[in-house]
Amino acid sequence: MDNKLMLMIPGPTPVPEAALLALAKHPIGHRTSEFSNIMAEVTENLKWLHQTQHDVQMLNVSGTGAVEAGIINFLSPGDRILVGSNGKFGERWVEVGEAFGLNVETVTAEWGKPLDPAQFAEKLAADKDKQIKAVIITHSETSTGVINDLEAINRHVKAHGEALIIVDAVTSLGAFNVPVDAWGLDVVASGSQKGYMIPPGLGFVSVSPKAWEAYKTAKLPKYYLDLGKYRKATPKNTTPFTPPVNLIVALHTTLGMMKAEGLESIFTRHQRLKNATRAGIQGMNLPLFAADDAASPAITAVAPQGIESDKIRSLMKKRFDIALAGGQDHLSNKIFRIGHLGFVSDRDILSCIASLEVVLLELGYEGFTPGGGVAAAARVLSQS
Amino acid sequence: MDNKLMLMIPGPTPVPEAALLALAKHPIGHRTSEFSNIMAEVTENLKWLHQTQHDVQMLNVSGTGAVEAGIINFLSPGDRILVGSNGKFGERWVEVGEAFGLNVETVTAEWGKPLDPAQFAEKLAADKDKQIKAVIITHSETSTGVINDLEAINRHVKAHGEALIIVDAVTSLGAFNVPVDAWGLDVVASGSQKGYMIPPGLGFVSVSPKAWEAYKTAKLPKYYLDLGKYRKATPKNTTPFTPPVNLIVALHTTLGMMKAEGLESIFTRHQRLKNATRAGIQGMNLPLFAADDAASPAITAVAPQGIESDKIRSLMKKRFDIALAGGQDHLSNKIFRIGHLGFVSDRDILSCIASLEVVLLELGYEGFTPGGGVAAAARVLSQS
Repeated sequence: MDNKLMLMIPGPTPVPEAALLALAKHPIGHRTSEFSNIMAEVTENLKWLHQTQHDVQMLNVSGTGAVEAGIINFLSPGDRILVGSNGKFGERWVEVGEAFGLNVETVTAEWGKPLDPAQFAEKLAADKDKQIKAVIITHSETSTGVINDLEAINRHVKAHGEALIIVDAVTSLGAFNVPVDAWGLDVVASGSQKGYMIPPGLGFVSVSPKAWEAYKTAKLPKYYLDLGKYRKATPKNTTPFTPPVNLIVALHTTLGMMKAEGLESIFTRHQRLKNATRAGIQGMNLPLFAADDAASPAITAVAPQGIESDKIRSLMKKRFDIALAGGQDHLSNKIFRIGHLGFVSDRDILSCIASLEVVLLELGYEGFTPGGGVAAAARVLSQS
Repeated sequence: MDNKLMLMIPGPTPVPEAALLALAKHPIGHRTSEFSNIMAEVTENLKWLHQTQHDVQMLNVSGTGAVEAGIINFLSPGDRILVGSNGKFGERWVEVGEAFGLNVETVTAEWGKPLDPAQFAEKLAADKDKQIKAVIITHSETSTGVINDLEAINRHVKAHGEALIIVDAVTSLGAFNVPVDAWGLDVVASGSQKGYMIPPGLGFVSVSPKAWEAYKTAKLPKYYLDLGKYRKATPKNTTPFTPPVNLIVALHTTLGMMKAEGLESIFTRHQRLKNATRAGIQGMNLPLFAADDAASPAITAVAPQGIESDKIRSLMKKRFDIALAGGQDHLSNKIFRIGHLGFVSDRDILSCIASLEVVLLELGYEGFTPGGGVAAAARVLSQS
């Protein structure tokens, strides 16, 4: 059956009907009191979601654009930065740093393994002259389903004292606890097609007072991505450039839904979705790509043995209209990724695991007992 | 009556129902053949709209982001550029040039007057060493409703031989003839919420082979706005970063509508809308802000005497739910602007002029014969 698509990729994520209907509303003028009223509520709710008392800036860009803005606004050519790299997105922030002439040093881990906080501690402790101006971390590495220990790494950044902590929270914000003010996270960037439950097109950047201090002397050139321009406009409930009005109206709707659900419930739900997915995968005797203690609450990567990942994905799409993500770069056809981020319910996980069982049977995979995946997922769901 | 909004601002412009419904479709994955098929048609239709055989790059940015990308991809720090400035947007491109450390020289005209091509000729002819690397022109100056003589200015740029012509066509593309290849326009930037008839959120940049040559040695830093990344992805019917899927699906719809109408018909319609609007305004004895030979086909600015512009706008909104734009910067409350760009019909102009007559009567303006505005507009519409 076609036209009954179920998105279980790490983004775009499923969009609730109320947000789809909001998207379909005729745009209103962006220099009107009606739009300003929406902006005022969106700004308040973004602060709530980021657990910060400071304004969160909203840009008409993808997640990459948001992270780039989060980097280039606070640094000058030649500045030394430390970038954690253990997947596609960590590698991308290295590329951004190099494109802007920063002096990039990396802390790496194999794709599928988390970054080691001790390696950050060592490099930061060795930097007696305080030359490291920023540490850039991908919190949830979308390419592998690994979550990095941001809290631990950030403690070492705080001990250093000088460096800013800049976080790619694109697939963690709205799924995992990211208490911006409590942890003292200087820059946190995210994108709309993830935990926010709306289509792609908006990026978000929270900025700490310490980062705004760095902004004053930062010399990398910028205009459209100049967060200072957004900072001036936000308290006036407006935007420096024409904003994507329809997406913002839809965001207004989903932020309201998130607030009604509550942060704790959102985080608990994502933990439960992750645990049920992982149990289901293990119940089919398929290998998980990331270890339990480094498993992202947003994405589960699976590394099947003896069956091509792309065959599984292709049959899941054809047979059940469930979209799963493939592996990127050298992991192409080696893993598949299940997104369980945003507007995803317990039922969706059961549908996905049950459908996977049928697909495995049809592909002739004999390494599991039919029903084993669903039973394992059910056990988690019934206990939590 | 509320909730019957009629947008007559220069953007966002009215969106056809088919595009609103396309926006409301659940997003699909952007790394799928289904999305690639849409991208392939969008790319072909963008080439048609730009009258070019070269790919047009599509970015998740506002019009300002598109123009910035059109500038920074082809230049290096310290490069000398000539920027035409006769309104808010011309001034903005000066700011972008300065933000990126370019050596900016301006050719200015009073707001409301067109740029003088002879001034470009003079400066370009004097540049014997060919140090001027680019000339930046706002084709239709949204802030004043003035259209600059791009064709004439471009002839002088071609005579210079070295400089690129970079065009802000944000409110001219899809309203006025911009034959990219025939005129040899190197970079043409535009935005979705204008002639494209969809909400804001997408920017477009066409790039000539000569500009791609300049790209090879251009040193301004870029990543998210690096058009080379888009250039690689476009022929594969994909995007370097997550694209705003829903907006692209809506664009697919409106480009199809534009193709069905035909370029000549679109341009003729905008000329007719402009002529009818201007006749209607003159029929009410209200002064037009721009002269006939410099009047944009997209926006008509009106400079009423003895009545505050903002009072007219406010009553138009309250009484008829018609949104008009105000003046920007020093023109605030001095002019109002009627957008007649994109999904606008003859009927819309009649509605607007007739409503304006009522508003003028209610505001006690005695300088016109009621019915005079509508009669003048009707005459134009019945003759063309």
